[in-house]
Amino acid sequence: MIAMRRVAVALVHHPVEDRERAIVTTAVTNLDVHDIARSSHTYGVTDFFVVHPIAAQRTLVQRIRDHWVDGSGARRIPDRKPAMECLRIVPTLEEARAALGEDSELWVTSASRGQGEPLPFEAGRRFLSTQGPPVLLCFGTGWGLAPSVMASATRRLAPIASPRVDGYNHLSVRAAVAIILDRLLGAS
Amino acid sequence: MIAMRRVAVALVHHPVEDRERAIVTTAVTNLDVHDIARSSHTYGVTDFFVVHPIAAQRTLVQRIRDHWVDGSGARRIPDRKPAMECLRIVPTLEEARAALGEDSELWVTSASRGQGEPLPFEAGRRFLSTQGPPVLLCFGTGWGLAPSVMASATRRLAPIASPRVDGYNHLSVRAAVAIILDRLLGAS
Repeated sequence: MIAMRRVAVALVHHPVEDRERAIVTTAVTNLDVHDIARSSHTYGVTDFFVVHPIAAQRTLVQRIRDHWVDGSGARRIPDRKPAMECLRIVPTLEEARAALGEDSELWVTSASRGQGEPLPFEAGRRFLSTQGPPVLLCFGTGWGLAPSVMASATRRLAPIASPRVDGYNHLSVRAAVAIILDRLLGAS
Repeated sequence: MIAMRRVAVALVHHPVEDRERAIVTTAVTNLDVHDIARSSHTYGVTDFFVVHPIAAQRTLVQRIRDHWVDGSGARRIPDRKPAMECLRIVPTLEEARAALGEDSELWVTSASRGQGEPLPFEAGRRFLSTQGPPVLLCFGTGWGLAPSVMASATRRLAPIASPRVDGYNHLSVRAAVAIILDRLLGAS
């Protein structure tokens, strides 16, 4: 599906929870940057924001981007370049939203948590096929987005329900982003 | 969807193609093992075969498995244990099929290539919801499965079509496995 809105993705390294639900800042994982840039560009996402409050970590991501957009990586694997060109590095989620415009919507996802009725994927898909303000799809590293981010969201997508009887559902963020982009924007 | 058949996943490191379409053997990527084990277990896949012809690489994967099933990893992140327990390490794809039984089917996927009509995902989903022999879903590392593997397949799934006008489609194997498991086995 070609979205009628600008759709962006944010990968948040702070504020997120650790496994004891403490609010922490996670380190950048190189393969997160690659996989989510590749999935984003494949599904027509215009911007992939890596959100990190620590300057040295932002510099690291900028170097990864430079290597694949202007450096030897771009010559060795040219297919990686357009994906990496979508990458934008910002210190806060607020800055990512500001880059998309004041009217942009923040959509969050969660494996389990959240209050109120979540937005089913089919409804999200229909929504994105109509014209309107940009949508920022927000994903947490670690054990997921902090409650403050969840509370600030415009909409919360339904969890990726496990088909298992025991409900086991521990996807990597790289897998979760891929599945959610496919459900919202995949060719039908 | 709860499959009525046993469904397994294989990640092949040989024979696969490199970007010049030469047949090569790729190195194991640690995050492939984790991500695909997690996605497999979440979607009810019973076995995740890592296929590698080199003994030292198989030993490496066995050590990763041991760390997360019996070692300190299992104590630190218990959720990882059931996913890693699905992991089986074999030297050849033939050995993976033999473990599933002579009547097992080999399903391959490809971003683009292949002769004849591919199997649409909806038909694959219906097929897995009926009783019958096990199905081994086979994925290639590098630039994809060698033609010899493609030719030996029982069925070839349709490519994950890009919704983009330019058709850009360069997903990581980790993302492709997640999306295909969701399309074939996701809760509906």
